[in-house]
Amino acid sequence: GIKGIAAPYTVFKGKAALSVTPILPTFTKLDSGLHVVERRGVMMLKFIPAIGERKYDWEKKQLFALSPTEVGSLISLGASDSCEFFHDPSMLSSNAGQVRKSLSIKPHSTGSGYMISLTVVNNVEKSRDNLSVPFTTAEFAVVKTACSYALPHILGWDRLTDKVARGHAS
Amino acid sequence: GIKGIAAPYTVFKGKAALSVTPILPTFTKLDSGLHVVERRGVMMLKFIPAIGERKYDWEKKQLFALSPTEVGSLISLGASDSCEFFHDPSMLSSNAGQVRKSLSIKPHSTGSGYMISLTVVNNVEKSRDNLSVPFTTAEFAVVKTACSYALPHILGWDRLTDKVARGHAS
Amino acid sequence: GIKGIAAPYTVFKGKAALSVTPILPTFTKLDSGLHVVERRGVMMLKFIPAIGERKYDWEKKQLFALSPTEVGSLISLGASDSCEFFHDPSMLSSNAGQVRKSLSIKPHSTGSGYMISLTVVNNVEKSRDNLSVPFTTAEFAVVKTACSYALPHILGWDRLTDKVARGHAS
Amino acid sequence: GIKGIAAPYTVFKGKAALSVTPILPTFTKLDSGLHVVERRGVMMLKFIPAIGERKYDWEKKQLFALSPTEVGSLISLGASDSCEFFHDPSMLSSNAGQVRKSLSIKPHSTGSGYMISLTVVNNVEKSRDNLSVPFTTAEFAVVKTACSYALPHILGWDRLTDKVARGHAS
Repeated sequence: GIKGIAAPYTVFKGKAALSVTPILPTFTKLDSGLHVVERRGVMMLKFIPAIGERKYDWEKKQLFALSPTEVGSLISLGASDSCEFFHDPSMLSSNAGQVRKSLSIKPHSTGSGYMISLTVVNNVEKSRDNLSVPFTTAEFAVVKTACSYALPHILGWDRLTDKVARGHAS
Repeated sequence: GIKGIAAPYTVFKGKAALSVTPILPTFTKLDSGLHVVERRGVMMLKFIPAIGERKYDWEKKQLFALSPTEVGSLISLGASDSCEFFHDPSMLSSNAGQVRKSLSIKPHSTGSGYMISLTVVNNVEKSRDNLSVPFTTAEFAVVKTACSYALPHILGWDRLTDKVARGHAS
Repeated sequence: GIKGIAAPYTVFKGKAALSVTPILPTFTKLDSGLHVVERRGVMMLKFIPAIGERKYDWEKKQLFALSPTEVGSLISLGASDSCEFFHDPSMLSSNAGQVRKSLSIKPHSTGSGYMISLTVVNNVEKSRDNLSVPFTTAEFAVVKTACSYALPHILGWDRLTDKVARGHAS
Repeated sequence: GIKGIAAPYTVFKGKAALSVTPILPTFTKLDSGLHVVERRGVMMLKFIPAIGERKYDWEKKQLFALSPTEVGSLISLGASDSCEFFHDPSMLSSNAGQVRKSLSIKPHSTGSGYMISLTVVNNVEKSRDNLSVPFTTAEFAVVKTACSYALPHILGWDRLTDKVARGHAS
């Protein structure tokens, strides 16, 4: 059977690579017959450290999942704006606070393009990882355009329109 | 059978929550075989008052349905622009004027984000409800992008393209 | 069978109404199995004169079909820009020059919204019709957004993606 | 069977014509059942030299395939910006360096529209071809809008959403 399709947009740079791909929401059916979002969609960022020329260590990848509102922040970013998001993968569990991830998007001082950086601080392992990938204006335009396209899909609005429309027409 | 899909974009704030979701038009088939819009599509705004910390009273929700032209107003709003819409749920009926709803979208004085407010004046019950939800720039960008996506769908133009295209190709 | 779907965006004003709707291209199949565009898609503008309060004479409607490039002109129109297009419905036939249509889009002097005017000069009937519909900023935003959505469809690019994609995946 | 659909956007000018059409990625199925991109999608530019009034020599066409990032560069081009891309059709093979193609997009000095030029230098045949097509602001707006639409499709993100979504819903 079909297990899904992988089609990330990946930018390879000297110290790390960054791939961007939308993850759609999943739906669950209520007794009423209505489908509601079970797990909300996200835009998944994957940072992969370089371990040589054009070689990347996929085992050491670090993930950061942008919520719809964080995607809204990214796509409304002006040429000289920056933004930063903080995530705790164990939020609301007993492990809260052990790992802290922060993603920052900062414009290059030259005025063209952005530095996208992920910092992962692990208070248990006493480790601190930093992975940064410089994006050109063109590469960031791809991300903005593709994220604008993906946003209604990670909200689940494409499902809304297809299913309901078909039901109405019959 | 499928009863539809619920996938609102909801922003929860201290005094109220606001959810946004497109409602597609319905079509009716004429004797000629042509399908025409029966009930036009809208962008539905749902305001839900808070009754405690992270608790919302869904029974007291207030609705406001944006027409395509009102959606056009929202998506063309500049950073320092505001807009206001007035609806009478009983317009053209004998109850006209009993209830008056107004929706306003005003930029924060800080220059980032908007206050979205609904006022419902009920002249029969002598009541006046006001529900306001502050939106950050990122949250409003989600609404703008998702509404731009949804606009052709609430006009019914996605149906136009799919059905006609398929007919032509066969 | 399904004869198509009519879902125009129509703006009703005092002297005339203007409806906008995309017409998709038709395709023809070559011996090679390749489908090519037979009749290109257009954005159809329909002007309907008013003959009383909220009454419009659909028999006297005048059409103007925007080509993809003319749609490009419309969607790239700045707030203080204007544009004008000239069509001859009988171009390249023996009746060329008998009827001359011109469509102009001009910004209101107030700086918000546009006047959209169609002039039809018929040299045979010695007639000259002018139909003008003022569009607010919001109404024009609907047209711009919906035309941006429709442009790839009237080019036929939505067909390209669907069919080819499905073929590849099987 | 269906062999695909050809629906290029073509601009015919005095010395050459330029057609633009998206080419979708192809996918291959891994043993795990996951589909991954086999050949990435591109935006194909086709330059055709004129050999008389409204006559073009399709045998002498020259191709230039824009990558997703080059499409990002094109759609983020400001009114006074220019860009240039260099391709070697035999890159990484033993014939590398024999043929060198460069595409440049430069704004007209008048401030409206762009000159799109392809130069092909063949060091083996000692030849140098140059094909230039002036684009109006409206024609370039069509290309920008249609390329923004096509970008997620040439990345394969439309496949992602359709297939995965359907799987989740069943």
